[in-house]
Amino acid sequence: MTIQNKSNNSWIHDKTKESKEQTANWLDERKRRIFNKKTLNKRVPILTWLPKYNKEDAVGDLVAGFTVGLTVIPQALAFAGIAGLPVEHGLYASFLGCVVYILLGSSKDVPIGPTAMSALLVFQVTQGDWQKAVLLTFLTGIIEICMGFLQLGFLLDFVSGPVSAGFTSAVALLISSSQVKDIFGIKASGPTFLKMWASIIENIQNLHLPDTLLGCCCIIILLLLKEITSIKVGPLEETARSLIHKNLTKILWLIGTSRNALSVITCAVLGANTSLFTLVGKIPSGMPGFEIPSFSFVRKNNGTETIESFEEVTSSFGAALIIIPLISLLENMAVCTSFANGRAVDATQELIAIGASNIANSLVQGFCSTGGLARGAVQNASGVRTQLANLYTALIVMIALQFFTPCFSYIPKACLAAVIITAVIFMVQYKVLRPMWNSKKIDLIPGLCTFIACLVLRIQIGIFVGITINFIFILYQTARPKINIEKVFTPSGLQYLKVTPDRCLIFPSVEFVRSSINKEGIKCELPIVIDCTFIYGADFTAAKIVSQLIKDFEQRSQKLLFFNLKPSVVQVFEGISPDLANYYDIKELEMELAMAGVVYV
Amino acid sequence: MTIQNKSNNSWIHDKTKESKEQTANWLDERKRRIFNKKTLNKRVPILTWLPKYNKEDAVGDLVAGFTVGLTVIPQALAFAGIAGLPVEHGLYASFLGCVVYILLGSSKDVPIGPTAMSALLVFQVTQGDWQKAVLLTFLTGIIEICMGFLQLGFLLDFVSGPVSAGFTSAVALLISSSQVKDIFGIKASGPTFLKMWASIIENIQNLHLPDTLLGCCCIIILLLLKEITSIKVGPLEETARSLIHKNLTKILWLIGTSRNALSVITCAVLGANTSLFTLVGKIPSGMPGFEIPSFSFVRKNNGTETIESFEEVTSSFGAALIIIPLISLLENMAVCTSFANGRAVDATQELIAIGASNIANSLVQGFCSTGGLARGAVQNASGVRTQLANLYTALIVMIALQFFTPCFSYIPKACLAAVIITAVIFMVQYKVLRPMWNSKKIDLIPGLCTFIACLVLRIQIGIFVGITINFIFILYQTARPKINIEKVFTPSGLQYLKVTPDRCLIFPSVEFVRSSINKEGIKCELPIVIDCTFIYGADFTAAKIVSQLIKDFEQRSQKLLFFNLKPSVVQVFEGISPDLANYYDIKELEMELAMAGVVYV
Repeated sequence: MTIQNKSNNSWIHDKTKESKEQTANWLDERKRRIFNKKTLNKRVPILTWLPKYNKEDAVGDLVAGFTVGLTVIPQALAFAGIAGLPVEHGLYASFLGCVVYILLGSSKDVPIGPTAMSALLVFQVTQGDWQKAVLLTFLTGIIEICMGFLQLGFLLDFVSGPVSAGFTSAVALLISSSQVKDIFGIKASGPTFLKMWASIIENIQNLHLPDTLLGCCCIIILLLLKEITSIKVGPLEETARSLIHKNLTKILWLIGTSRNALSVITCAVLGANTSLFTLVGKIPSGMPGFEIPSFSFVRKNNGTETIESFEEVTSSFGAALIIIPLISLLENMAVCTSFANGRAVDATQELIAIGASNIANSLVQGFCSTGGLARGAVQNASGVRTQLANLYTALIVMIALQFFTPCFSYIPKACLAAVIITAVIFMVQYKVLRPMWNSKKIDLIPGLCTFIACLVLRIQIGIFVGITINFIFILYQTARPKINIEKVFTPSGLQYLKVTPDRCLIFPSVEFVRSSINKEGIKCELPIVIDCTFIYGADFTAAKIVSQLIKDFEQRSQKLLFFNLKPSVVQVFEGISPDLANYYDIKELEMELAMAGVVYV
Repeated sequence: MTIQNKSNNSWIHDKTKESKEQTANWLDERKRRIFNKKTLNKRVPILTWLPKYNKEDAVGDLVAGFTVGLTVIPQALAFAGIAGLPVEHGLYASFLGCVVYILLGSSKDVPIGPTAMSALLVFQVTQGDWQKAVLLTFLTGIIEICMGFLQLGFLLDFVSGPVSAGFTSAVALLISSSQVKDIFGIKASGPTFLKMWASIIENIQNLHLPDTLLGCCCIIILLLLKEITSIKVGPLEETARSLIHKNLTKILWLIGTSRNALSVITCAVLGANTSLFTLVGKIPSGMPGFEIPSFSFVRKNNGTETIESFEEVTSSFGAALIIIPLISLLENMAVCTSFANGRAVDATQELIAIGASNIANSLVQGFCSTGGLARGAVQNASGVRTQLANLYTALIVMIALQFFTPCFSYIPKACLAAVIITAVIFMVQYKVLRPMWNSKKIDLIPGLCTFIACLVLRIQIGIFVGITINFIFILYQTARPKINIEKVFTPSGLQYLKVTPDRCLIFPSVEFVRSSINKEGIKCELPIVIDCTFIYGADFTAAKIVSQLIKDFEQRSQKLLFFNLKPSVVQVFEGISPDLANYYDIKELEMELAMAGVVYV
């Protein structure tokens, strides 16, 4: 007795010592993992690719960076309009963030800059106040970096395909609608889709004909130019094409790709030489100043000045402080995974990279930026080799800021509206409906609900509604497992009822499982064997209800056996029912049934 | 070709006809199911048991109804205090609902009446306004009936054991704390646990000594009397006890069970004959009037009268309109299942029954009632036979209302507080901690979070917090399946990598599964077989990402095969990837691998 006690104690002692050692090892391990070279390379990806940089990389990046630069300038001007900000802030958001991304970004295909979706979110939160937009960008950056260090990138997994499709489509419609007023040259506004259109219809009689004509022409030309990017000159087979064919194809592709820049330049020339159109107006020339964002604001209201404190402003941002980082990550990851050929993308690193880019942007009065899918496709198709392509894009934007801002003031608003509409209208994902119908019809519900909610409510609320509906689907699935029930015989002919639940036993499902098994147990008086092959997990509620189930069967003097219960689950159940009858071997089960007096048939 | 077309058409025609027939059949079937005798018996359970009612049933019910009557009267007075209402409303809530439950209730053990938990919820919502409390009761009743018809009883499954334990414990502490002021004879109040105690400590110097002494004595005596219910007089073995022993045991049990009634009567006598104690005060005598609850209220504020409309009042009720029905059902189901010996309890029918009871109660100015677990235990132990016991309880309450209300005004407040504290303090479920620790430690988190949130915030919000944390646990579990990876050989020696995910593929997990499989695929260049035995379900997002996974493998010219995919899941996947390589037979799999050029080892 004494010996056993002693050995018990020594075992406890050993265990404590062991656990201390484990803790020390774990700390060392963490230190090593955080400060080793591999982690450094992972967190500062430029260390990996820059040493191997060669001439071919330089050529590829230059071409890609230049092409993206031609795309990003008109987009930046246009998306600043979506955000309700003076157009120069779009350009301010398109150079410093790019440079930061070169250091920290893990994907070569990501061109940092404003996107339509984040611009709309910025507008819905700040209502066109550029100082607030800059503060929002700064906070978004900080939150993205924090989310990165907390490894919260997995949150994106909770946005399902249908919800994401519904959200994107609604955003596309909202953005297009917000630009219709500029096409018609009228004034209109509204917080939701329906009110926006009501306002447009109300003001349609003030239509400004030159703007309308210019806008419609731009839309048609842009759509046609988009089509020519996919034209292949020459014979169908690629090998049969001559060098001229190939060069012609490339030129067509380049014209198509820089369609926005071309149409903006043409229209600006028109705008400068006529006085027919509503123009963007005066833009401050030169590079923006480098300054910390304001954290509180002075508001003038009827002559009196009131101060909005940091707390008031951030609380007015509300859920957007979570939604914008998530949506930015969603867009950015879409670019990364589209061109990663199945290689894993490090969401944590991307969060840190776009976070740092946003902080940098906020210091030069830019607004929220991230990787845009359309520009990403251009960058990839232009033969980008490394992240350095962003440098050339940034240089082009800086040159534009330094030298061409006076010209930008001549751009007609209708032309920018046409650029936006032709960019976002293809984001309406009607094509996803058919595969969804073929694959799983019920998934149309969260998709359509998100779509409608985003149009009817504010989009931050809309996406919450969609995610919630999707969660309810998962929870319902967890709550109602399928239970397979059949009368079977052991090899030697003992009859029993085999009950097989098809998934884990956790609280939403377990009362249902208990009542189902009890019902079957009362109906047929055979011993019941629960086949637990598919039960990979259980919780305390399950353990409690299983112990009640065991008592139910004891009261009826009916046999209840468990078969093939995983050791991890046994542990959970035995915390409450220490004498659980669990078997892994069909022969043992048979012996137990025979002992219980089950007759051979 | 024409023939085929025709046959196709006829097939379509047939299908339409068939589906029409099916619809008609389904409607007939629904009609039959709704209006047949079985459903009628299920929805009006008195039809089942009343025809078989006999003398023995009558005796059992009489004894049980009488005993519960003695318990319910002091509890009703006390719980009205918790709800912040004049004490007579507790009695008003204890008779008409009982009678309605006889007709509709499905469990013999449920004694309808006020409970501490629902009283606290009523207080937190209506802040002691009896007219609002009555309207709340009416609406609660209607919502319960609606939930019954919509079969929403399953919502209860989403309240896990730990959350329910944390909630109940917090409620018990809150209720006890709210009564401490009456024990000390002081004035104190506070919306949360901490503020309540701060207020008590602040006012403790005004302590009223006679009240304090009476309260403490009552608590001690009630706790002692509770103990004697479990005393068995005579020898240990039941068979060896004489009739005298048994009768003595019964008398002790009866004294213990009616301890609340006894102490209230004694204290009322003391209160009537001395003027030492703070008394309950004047109570309107006689039965309440029968009237429809008010739907709008006139409020006097600084002499001006304002009208609170129905919308304003209901929106001030807010989430309580869902929480109170759910908690009422939770309490009621706890009574039903405790004494059902594993038989299934019909949550739908119970919702309808307590809903109808609450509507009835609201017509006689009572507040929310449901089955109380303590009274249910008394009713069961008194040998109840059918729901008719509720009739005798109702009669006793009506007699008390008609003849004894003048006496109730002499009851000292401290005595009622003692009745409440000794009733609810055992609801603090500290005993659940040890089995939870033994069974599944992580389940302590939602339990403790609910407990703390209910104490710190309002309890409706607290339970929401708990349920949300629990949901996050489920969602995380869904998002991170375990994937088992091993190199295996087919019977004839072909090597492949077998990947086995352990649960269903739905959107939160599927990106993780894809990147895991890709990582393994890139690491080892063997063909990969995904063993889908444990995958019981999939959604559109899963189908989309699986199609991407297939493309990833095609790009690497690596073989990716599926094994044992359930037909329902195949359908979902084939909606997007029509040429999915799925095998059910290991031999077919082997042939496929051999054709792909896998070498024998």
